[in-house]
This record gives sequence, structure tokens and C-alpha cells, in this order.
Amino acid sequence: MRAARYYGKEDIRIENVDEQTCGAGQVRIAPAYVGICGTDLHEYLGGPNFAPTKPHPVTKETIPITLGHEFSGVVTEVGQDVSTYGVGQHVVVQPSIYCSNCEACSAGYENVCYNSGFIGLSGGGGGLSDSVVVPEAAVLALPDNVSLDVGALVEPLSVAWHAISAAPLTEESVVLILGGGPIGLAVVQCLVALNTKTIILSEVSKSRQRFAKDFGAHHVLDPRASDTVAVSKELSGKDGPDIVFDCAGVPASITTACSAVKARGHVVNVAIWEREIPFNPNTLGFREANYTGVLGYQRKDVQGVIDQLAAGKLKPSKMITSKIQLEDLVEGGIKALIHDKESHVKILVEVGGMGRVDSAIR
Amino acid sequence: MRAARYYGKEDIRIENVDEQTCGAGQVRIAPAYVGICGTDLHEYLGGPNFAPTKPHPVTKETIPITLGHEFSGVVTEVGQDVSTYGVGQHVVVQPSIYCSNCEACSAGYENVCYNSGFIGLSGGGGGLSDSVVVPEAAVLALPDNVSLDVGALVEPLSVAWHAISAAPLTEESVVLILGGGPIGLAVVQCLVALNTKTIILSEVSKSRQRFAKDFGAHHVLDPRASDTVAVSKELSGKDGPDIVFDCAGVPASITTACSAVKARGHVVNVAIWEREIPFNPNTLGFREANYTGVLGYQRKDVQGVIDQLAAGKLKPSKMITSKIQLEDLVEGGIKALIHDKESHVKILVEVGGMGRVDSAIR
Repeated sequence: MRAARYYGKEDIRIENVDEQTCGAGQVRIAPAYVGICGTDLHEYLGGPNFAPTKPHPVTKETIPITLGHEFSGVVTEVGQDVSTYGVGQHVVVQPSIYCSNCEACSAGYENVCYNSGFIGLSGGGGGLSDSVVVPEAAVLALPDNVSLDVGALVEPLSVAWHAISAAPLTEESVVLILGGGPIGLAVVQCLVALNTKTIILSEVSKSRQRFAKDFGAHHVLDPRASDTVAVSKELSGKDGPDIVFDCAGVPASITTACSAVKARGHVVNVAIWEREIPFNPNTLGFREANYTGVLGYQRKDVQGVIDQLAAGKLKPSKMITSKIQLEDLVEGGIKALIHDKESHVKILVEVGGMGRVDSAIR
Repeated sequence: MRAARYYGKEDIRIENVDEQTCGAGQVRIAPAYVGICGTDLHEYLGGPNFAPTKPHPVTKETIPITLGHEFSGVVTEVGQDVSTYGVGQHVVVQPSIYCSNCEACSAGYENVCYNSGFIGLSGGGGGLSDSVVVPEAAVLALPDNVSLDVGALVEPLSVAWHAISAAPLTEESVVLILGGGPIGLAVVQCLVALNTKTIILSEVSKSRQRFAKDFGAHHVLDPRASDTVAVSKELSGKDGPDIVFDCAGVPASITTACSAVKARGHVVNVAIWEREIPFNPNTLGFREANYTGVLGYQRKDVQGVIDQLAAGKLKPSKMITSKIQLEDLVEGGIKALIHDKESHVKILVEVGGMGRVDSAIR
């Protein structure tokens, strides 16, 4: 079968590889659509970061590994003892890999498992292939009224849904989002779905500003043209936003977040940071604000997103700015995002096009 | 009357100044004992920091100002409409100055008032004088079984008591305290008063390590001799401490705090920071831990400390490592703390000694 294999920095190859076997408690899926994630870009540009160069503690695999962790697909085979899913069913995969043994897993926080990984980044196959075998526990059913391409957006939306659960959000909340990339825009959509009163997004890129407006942000600020701290405080009609989501992850964003948030308000960091940055804890402490980081999502978050999609509260299809074929992954996908990221939110790889999904059902 | 006046860096003078008048709603106090605080040292060594060089928004005063914000005393006069306190009563002063108008005050968080200050740092008199006039709302009664010298410890203990209220402490909590200065030791004592199961303190100084043991820390670590992160995780018997209090405020302490705390645990910053430090938000975010800063205290915290003292749960008298006279403030107090801070926890200035308090009652 075809698979996009990651070998290292700037080295992704579309190869023919053997299919995994589908054992007891496992489900074989023919991936339909696969989103390209910022993490994939980081692996391509400067990796390996997440991709294992020594055996991953859970998958035991090292590079080359198959890419693709944001995906929907169709069940083509079920292993012994699998009764929840059947052949032909549309599904999405929660790609988190966790060990179930560490202290974080024991406490029920498998999303911060100390041996964590992702299907499609850490071994265990990936969505960017004609077939992938995953544990039944990693599969969630896609309702009939949610299309397979939208299904590929469930994963990034789950990141946002989980982030929102880390703050005491109410319908009356004033929320500031820093950064209008895919995750920032996903946060906007989740807040809209929850009828949040005031949603302010700050973003440099003009095209991302337009996306934010389209997805329902009430106020979109350009931090180069106006003072995000001052304007967000003014728009809050009080001390400042109740909650700030940092989806940018740059030195300016943490300073803005901690300066804008109201006394005893909440800053939620959603970004992954590349290095240490200068920080003065007084900016938080002098107002007794809280700073929390979130990582990934739990199954309940993924199900929450699917429920919101099924109910029509989340309508993310405009996030899909391009669809490409697997063979065009590097040029039309990864390089397009690197060189023209502001024109795109999500590029989907149509792995299961050309009748491949139907013919894969055995 | 005598007063210790702060003029600027390395310039504190014991002078004769006029007494303040005691108007409606005000209480005149003859200070008995006054603690010297780290903030006083910072003002002496590198100030003015808090001491106002332009009119303070609430007091309207500029330097020179009278020092002394940790103090007990005896009521010597009450203004019109003051019925709560009477002449001869032993009291402590909550020195916070706040504006009652800003957004933080409006939200009930006057301890983070955006125009805040302190009696004894920002104008409005101070404890290091023979007489000080304060608003009735700043006064709290000292019970008969709490001595005036211990009363001077109420303020630093209130900082610790307030800090503890920022974390979800239970009797089962495993708590790590970084830094064994006066505030770190006050946190230890508050945790002991609340029957906390496991109290670990990390501190470089041998004498402070001994103080920590004396005050009831269950485990005292020397970060130069052992790995505080590893040992505290081991002592926790699980993922790591539930709560970490940073009472050190140095780059190593924030890194240790964020690395040691358990997944979804709580780091509470109690320190005041002098500058930006290098910080990687991933250390918190990858375990979804929380970081909160606290500042000062509220009246309920001060009353909480007084109640614990009255009940015999807090026994802080060993914090008093020296008592000096007002005339000896700079040499025997401030310079002693600067040059030999590890031998001391609290040096008290005995302002009301030599019968001065009794003779001051009018």
C-alpha cells in the first residue's frame, strides 16, 4: 500500500509498504481525508522532534514512520472482539498514544502521559497511507450528517475544545485569543458554538483576520495597528478579558496575555514553545491571575466536538482551504503551507479518493 | 515624635517629626514592635521602589516617608465615630492602602488594587515612629493571649496565609516550598497549623534549613546536595508535589517548581521578581499544571492568622531572632539583615519599649 514516510528533516517519501495486520481489539481503517498539521511542518523543517530516533516507549518504533494524525476514514476490517464498529462505518481516530502506567495516566490524565505519542508521528502507522490499524479505543464513530472531510477537522477542533475546558468559561465571558492560525480559529469556533458573549482575536495576518471574522470573532485586532492590551480591556468594559488563549506562542503573546487578562483572570496556553522566552512572573502575580497550559485532548473532548458537529453548532468546513492527493503531499501540501501559510487554514490530503475507500472494504 | 524616615537609597534618618492628627474614623496607635521586611532592605539597597517619588495616588505623599509596615501597638486615641476600638487596646495594623475605585477593588480584590500601597512604605505614616494614625478599617484587635511582639509577625504570616488560600490544599496534600526566608518559613508554619501531611522545604542556607526543621517541615532539602525535583517526586510517593510555593523568586526556583509539580498540580508564586527570567511554558503545559501569583493579603487573611495564633495553632515566636531599639534601626537592623540574613528570620524594632507605650496613652 502507499504511505507517506518520514525519514528526517526535509525527507518525506511516498513509498509502498506492507499493511499492518489487524489483530484482536483492533480496527483497520482506510483513511479518507488527512489534515496537515503545524507539527508535521516542524518535523519537515527542523525535525525529528516528535518522530522517534530511538524506540518509542509505547510503539517501539523509530523513523521512518508513517505520517498523518488528523484523519477520518472508513472501517475496512475489524479484529476479534471488536463489536462497537463495523465494516463500512465512517470514523475518526483519536491519535493519542499513551502508556496507561505512568503517574499522569494513573491520575486519568492520559493526554499528558509521560510516554505519550501520536499515531502518525510516533509509529503505529498513520493516516497518510491506504490502510492503518488502530486500537478500538482510538476510534470514534462519525455521525451520518458529518462528512468525512469535516471529520478530518475533528482533531484540531478537539485541541481547541480541550483548551476551552481549562478555563471557567460562561456565556458572559469576554475572551481574547492571540494568534489566528488553525488552532486559534478552532478556539473561535468552539467559543461561538458555546454562545460566548465577546470573542476578540488578535492576529497580524490580514487573511487570517478575515478567517477570524468569517468564523464569528466579534472583534479582530491587528497588534501592529492597535494596542491589543488596551483595546481588549476597553472592549471588555471592565478590567480586561476574563480569559486569554495564547495560540501564538511567541514572546510578545505571553506578555500581552498576562498584561491583558483581568485580576484573577485566566491565561490558557495552547501553543507549543520552541525555546525559553523572557518572562516576568510579576505580570501575573501583581494581579493574581492564573496561567495554565493544555496539551492535546482526551476522548471526551473528541466526542464533544463530534457532538457539536452533529448538532450543527460547529460548522468548520471553511477551514478546508485546499484538497490535494497523497502524491502531492510535499509540494502541494507541506511546502504550500510553509510558503503561503496565511492563505490556508487546513490543507487536506484526499487519501481515499478515486474509489480507494470503497475498494478497500473487504 | 521620633520617626524613621526614608529619603532614598542608603538614606534612612531617625528624625523628630510632627504627629499626625487623629480625625473621624481614625485610630492613633503607639507602635510596640515593628518587623523589618525584605522590602525595607530593597528600598535601602536599591530604592526608591515602592516609596513614592511622585505623589502616591492614594496618600498623595512623596519621599521622605516614615517606614514600618509590619507592626503591633496599643491604641492611644480614637477619632470621632470609632466605636470598635478603645484606648489601651492591643492591635495590629493591616497596612494595605487601596483606592476602592479601580477595577480590582471593584471586583473585591483590593489586595491587587491598581493604585495600591502600604502604610509605612507609601506615605500615611508608618510603624517605625512613636505614633501613627490609621483608618479604623486598617486595625484588627489582638487577643489577650497573643503578645505584642508576636503581633508584629501577623503581617508576614498573612502573606503566607493568603498564598495558601490560592491552592487547593487538603490535609493529604504533599507540598514543596522553595526558599526558607521569612515568607517560606511562614508558609511552613501555616501548613503545619493546617495539619498538612507532607511539607518539604528546599533551601541552600544551613541555618535556614534548621529554622525550617524547627518550624515543622517534614523534609528539608539542600538543592546543592540533592535533586529537589527528583527527591520531592520520590517523597510524594507519586507524580510529584500537589502544590509548590515559590518563595525564592530566582530563575532556578521557577524551573524547579514547574518541573517538580505533579500533572495538573499547582505552583503558587509568592516571590516578588526583580526582572524578567528565562521561562519555557512547555514545562507547565506538557503536564497541564497551573501557575498562580499571589500578592499581599486581604483582611480575612489577617484575621485568619490572628485566629490561628489565638487558638495556639500558629506558634511563630521563634521567628524573632533579635530585638533592637529604633535608634539602632540601620546598623543593628537593616545592615545586620543585609550582612547576616541567614542567621535571622525577623528582627523586631522595639519602638514602644522603655514605657513609651504606656506614657503615650492619653
